[in-house]
Amino acid sequence: MREHGDATTGPSPVDQAAVRRGNLARVLAEIRRPGGHSRAALAATTGLTKATVSSLVAELIRRGLVRESGLRQEGVVGRPGRLLELDGASLAALGLEIGANYLAVRGVDLADRVLLDRRVGFDAVRAGAAGAVDELAELTADALAELRRARIEVVGIGVAVPGLADIATGTVHYAPNLLWQDVPVADRLRERLGTAGDVAVLVDNEANLSALAEFRRDPVTDLVYLTAGIGVGAGLIADGALLRGATGFSGEVGHLPVDPAGGACGCGRHGCLETKIGLAAVVRAGAPDLLDAPRDPEELAAALRHRAEAGQPRVLEALDDVGRWLGIGTSILVNLLNPGAVVLGGYFAAVAPYVVPAAMRELRSRAVAGEAAICRITGSAFGFGAAVRGGASVIADRVFDDPTAARLRAGPGVESA
Amino acid sequence: MREHGDATTGPSPVDQAAVRRGNLARVLAEIRRPGGHSRAALAATTGLTKATVSSLVAELIRRGLVRESGLRQEGVVGRPGRLLELDGASLAALGLEIGANYLAVRGVDLADRVLLDRRVGFDAVRAGAAGAVDELAELTADALAELRRARIEVVGIGVAVPGLADIATGTVHYAPNLLWQDVPVADRLRERLGTAGDVAVLVDNEANLSALAEFRRDPVTDLVYLTAGIGVGAGLIADGALLRGATGFSGEVGHLPVDPAGGACGCGRHGCLETKIGLAAVVRAGAPDLLDAPRDPEELAAALRHRAEAGQPRVLEALDDVGRWLGIGTSILVNLLNPGAVVLGGYFAAVAPYVVPAAMRELRSRAVAGEAAICRITGSAFGFGAAVRGGASVIADRVFDDPTAARLRAGPGVESA
Repeated sequence: MREHGDATTGPSPVDQAAVRRGNLARVLAEIRRPGGHSRAALAATTGLTKATVSSLVAELIRRGLVRESGLRQEGVVGRPGRLLELDGASLAALGLEIGANYLAVRGVDLADRVLLDRRVGFDAVRAGAAGAVDELAELTADALAELRRARIEVVGIGVAVPGLADIATGTVHYAPNLLWQDVPVADRLRERLGTAGDVAVLVDNEANLSALAEFRRDPVTDLVYLTAGIGVGAGLIADGALLRGATGFSGEVGHLPVDPAGGACGCGRHGCLETKIGLAAVVRAGAPDLLDAPRDPEELAAALRHRAEAGQPRVLEALDDVGRWLGIGTSILVNLLNPGAVVLGGYFAAVAPYVVPAAMRELRSRAVAGEAAICRITGSAFGFGAAVRGGASVIADRVFDDPTAARLRAGPGVESA
Repeated sequence: MREHGDATTGPSPVDQAAVRRGNLARVLAEIRRPGGHSRAALAATTGLTKATVSSLVAELIRRGLVRESGLRQEGVVGRPGRLLELDGASLAALGLEIGANYLAVRGVDLADRVLLDRRVGFDAVRAGAAGAVDELAELTADALAELRRARIEVVGIGVAVPGLADIATGTVHYAPNLLWQDVPVADRLRERLGTAGDVAVLVDNEANLSALAEFRRDPVTDLVYLTAGIGVGAGLIADGALLRGATGFSGEVGHLPVDPAGGACGCGRHGCLETKIGLAAVVRAGAPDLLDAPRDPEELAAALRHRAEAGQPRVLEALDDVGRWLGIGTSILVNLLNPGAVVLGGYFAAVAPYVVPAAMRELRSRAVAGEAAICRITGSAFGFGAAVRGGASVIADRVFDDPTAARLRAGPGVESA
């Protein structure tokens, strides 16, 4: 049975290239599974011919994605087959983040080994949009140079921003906490990096990228990532994929109206979720002495946790109250989306033990479907580092989805892709 | 280039059957597109060999899904190729619905022609779960008999219920307005139908099935279906697929806390969305004289619309207020999910002109991302008929996804599937 195209009646060249790319991805996905894989075994599991598998594997090797490891005896007779495993050590994905008070960069290779991980304090508001992107470009250029010196090819850059990003154009439409409007981040970053930046640049909301990082660590098909620093945001994974919405503006939880009789919100409304669980709200209520010049939310989170661990009643009370409102907000998400897990990022991650109990109480009392819909609420293991991880992993995933995104190096025996 | 399996090194029999089913679906999907399709054209567009396409087409014809129509001259030379088009006239999908005050059944063939469409008043609460399912079985048996007399094969039954259904088992866990808990609808229906019911039976929430019906009519990749009769519910389409959540309990919008200071809800909480926009609320506020014995929500909706058209101030005011709260609830869904369209079903469909303006006003004032996230809010063209349409279309879609779900009739030249 020959189900796929042959030269005479088969697909057009375009179709063939697409089929080829799809088969490269299928074979690479198999090789990424634990344990060594022989070409013969890959042919059996993918339903491709041995000849095709050999050609695909040769190409994956020349793109730096696969390497031959050991030998495996195929049955009693015949010569042993070479085992294949994921390589990716010479390919890197960069994750960047612009926060209101910091810039971060993380580089990982395609086997997910950390190559570099930096976070620097930075007043993005004072610097202005152009100044902030330029500063980020400096940080990126250093990272690129360092990786190039180590003979590692950067396959792309994923930039996390605390705002509404158009992933098609890499423009940030609106980032209230940066005071940004319509900032062409990808274009300016590429321009500043010049030829050094001759790689794919993706820009996305930090909660979206963080949700992808959490999903990669713990693949719960329906996952809600809820985060707060200066702002409050959510990244939603539905049935294994990021829920972006029609125009990319999903996950706007910060202004859920949870207390119409509540205090004024920066958005002009009253009693938005952000006024109850935002970092500013908890600091004001639990540690007002920390309300001063802009500082890294990570420091504030650490200070809150430190005081909570020391048993300071005021902080504990404030965090319990945050937990209660967090539970109210979470129950809305649970009743609408029925996630399998809710992961708390940003400052919540640092103080999870002090907010989760109250949040779970609220969730149990508000989940319409009862026990069957109640899921765990846990603090993120990545904390403020989730977004750069997500930025790097979307870049890596692009290569796993289309291995031709990794440059083809010189070598024998590869069909044109 | 032969990318797909051959007999010697190719896929296992299981893989081959899966590949075959996948290719049957691919070819059928092409044939469903407007215009006639020749086997040669199908080979070119699918990338399959002519031989494979001919074998797949022969099988689709014998399963009643495809028929030959006219002739098309393939280029200047060579004999003309026969054109193929969707058949499906001898295959039917049944949609059923159990409402608190009615039962409904709709039968369509796989070319989407309506074969039967019935709706009968029925007090499901008084009848009890077993009694209601038995009554539905009667209605179904009549429909099955009628279709069999017309020599139409029923490929499956999709049952819509106003509650939380486990689609894997066909059990309704909880249907507050029917006073149901853990009712094995699929099993009991099959048992009651006996051999006549020897077809697939799917049970799902009515809002989910309605959302699928609306999506089929207007394929907006991200669509929110918001409905109210006695209860309030939502069906969510995210990126072209139903968002079910981890355990199937998504779309619980009826108890969104929109007015903590508001009136008591049947759920024991206060100010739930249902207390603001449910049918009972609007009738109480706008047409209290209609508050009597249980009656079909469709009749109530028609009465409300009639009074609104007659300009009765009290009804108009009540509907405007419903519109306002509807807008508040909708803005929560829009900020979280960023849909491309919000479709109003149930009684909203009948009174859309009187609720949408206020709803749009609220949405505009509450959409965090502003214009870019604001979408249209429209009344459903199907009204209370959306759920049975959805029930029938999920059954039809199962066959289009796996054509082997349609029985193979006697005939020549078909490889084993």
